[in-house]
Amino acid sequence: MLALAGIPLGLRFRFLDPAADACTGEVGELLAGRYDDETLLDRLADGAAVVTYEFENVPVAAARRVGAVPDARALEQAQDRLREKELFRRLGIPTARFGSLEETGVPALVKTRRLGYDGKGQRVATAVEPLTSDELAEEIVPFGRELSLVAVRGRDGAVAFYPLTENVHRDGILRLSRAPAANAPEDAARDYATRLLEELDYVGVLALELFEADGSLLANELAPRVHNSGHWTIDAASTSQFENHLRAVLGLPLGSTEPTAPVAMVNLVGAAPPLAELLALPRARVHLYGKEPRPGRKLGHVTLLDPDEATLAAATRLAGGG
Amino acid sequence: MLALAGIPLGLRFRFLDPAADACTGEVGELLAGRYDDETLLDRLADGAAVVTYEFENVPVAAARRVGAVPDARALEQAQDRLREKELFRRLGIPTARFGSLEETGVPALVKTRRLGYDGKGQRVATAVEPLTSDELAEEIVPFGRELSLVAVRGRDGAVAFYPLTENVHRDGILRLSRAPAANAPEDAARDYATRLLEELDYVGVLALELFEADGSLLANELAPRVHNSGHWTIDAASTSQFENHLRAVLGLPLGSTEPTAPVAMVNLVGAAPPLAELLALPRARVHLYGKEPRPGRKLGHVTLLDPDEATLAAATRLAGGG
Repeated sequence: MLALAGIPLGLRFRFLDPAADACTGEVGELLAGRYDDETLLDRLADGAAVVTYEFENVPVAAARRVGAVPDARALEQAQDRLREKELFRRLGIPTARFGSLEETGVPALVKTRRLGYDGKGQRVATAVEPLTSDELAEEIVPFGRELSLVAVRGRDGAVAFYPLTENVHRDGILRLSRAPAANAPEDAARDYATRLLEELDYVGVLALELFEADGSLLANELAPRVHNSGHWTIDAASTSQFENHLRAVLGLPLGSTEPTAPVAMVNLVGAAPPLAELLALPRARVHLYGKEPRPGRKLGHVTLLDPDEATLAAATRLAGGG
Repeated sequence: MLALAGIPLGLRFRFLDPAADACTGEVGELLAGRYDDETLLDRLADGAAVVTYEFENVPVAAARRVGAVPDARALEQAQDRLREKELFRRLGIPTARFGSLEETGVPALVKTRRLGYDGKGQRVATAVEPLTSDELAEEIVPFGRELSLVAVRGRDGAVAFYPLTENVHRDGILRLSRAPAANAPEDAARDYATRLLEELDYVGVLALELFEADGSLLANELAPRVHNSGHWTIDAASTSQFENHLRAVLGLPLGSTEPTAPVAMVNLVGAAPPLAELLALPRARVHLYGKEPRPGRKLGHVTLLDPDEATLAAATRLAGGG
């Protein structure tokens, strides 16, 4: 999606991806191999105006070697839930209690500090027990809804925000996003994101995942990259998160983040329904990623422009939920 | 632009283009060679679900060989101005007087019947003179404005229309399009386009260029393809003309042609201004085609969402006009 946004700007792309059949081969040069293969990393960066990433589990050393933007600092925070939560605390950004099970109380969520993604590596602890140094407990917060803020910061320090997006997860996987979120505390969210962007001297798109309860926000996670909950911006914002990420890392002026229509985005998880049925949804914009179906895998998404409830229900039914 | 619209639908592309450095190589497999190279034509069609074209001077025999959609009938009409005008007349679609200079009177435009494009192959005749069999005279109509209608027809006969677009040419080259055109005779235009689509049993996107004078329309040309004046639909319609062309030729349901914002599209002709300056235009969407600059060549376009006059003036100034 970064390449599809950048090709119209005259940009050309080279990718490093562990999968030899990665769909990126359709829109650029694909180097298939490990993220820590130094020969490939050097080939990746050779002649490139900039190197970036869209997956936060890229090794920090790899990001350093290629001089990636955003820089390795944000990756280091995002890869370790403990450091991430400590960063929130240090910047005065409210977050749920975290630490040991003594600190959180039980029941609590116990998560691995590293490499969690889409709900993997989580369990509920119902009794206080010692945690390993790779584990972290988090208070279970009864929240009203999940929100996310997609922000972008340019090389010159200019900052822009998309409107807050409301997200629904199931089995730890994002299923549905709606934007702009109704009656959302935009100012507080923007304030928290600004603290993060400035503390990290961040350049590019950053997403902040939040819980809302009783009108207050708790920061849950930051993602130093374009974010699934911002995919709707391809179809319903003046500038997509992908284009704005490219603009930012290349030192180009940021584009307007203004939404052009209310939208719902439905993820296609596990299995992709027939294309003709997706395209028959009124005002649907279909995005397939060219990936092999696999349970729990995001294979694409559908953006519905200003949908009525019947259209949204039809899309959700089609999306199934594997 | 067809490939950029189709890749998100899971489609893969192969192109035949006479230019070995064609930008299509970025988004698919490029076969570089002549349109009448039968070996390449067979390779082009091999395994393809459908073959289409986006240039009306593709040889009819080539289109026949690969079973192109839309089929060769529309190409035959569009490649010969005389047959095109006779088709308009036969279907009761108003058009300027045409034929010999005796029939049109002078001054009149004399055009080659074939291979005219962007104003090439035109002259003004001020005295009656005999024309060659490859020439055609056309009445010079004092018109208020130029409009175009982009229509699409599916394999099942379903038809959809984008709103009329107002176009400004200079030196025979489209410079500016604005959509939706204000106070435009949509019904008459749709009526004329429907006659053409049905007569030709057309499948795909077709553009009809029109002159408006005193509230009446005169058909000027048909283009059996996606059309420059419809490029704004990438950024400001529920479904772009490119996606709808693909949907049509593949027998998929057509998408909504509803506009999402008023727009202006400015062509970048001859020379491309610095990317950063284009991107600094408010709510601008930049599309560069990856072509080498050459006088009179369209190198890209900029779509401005709901622009004010200052933004439009800035874009026009940047676009220059080589």
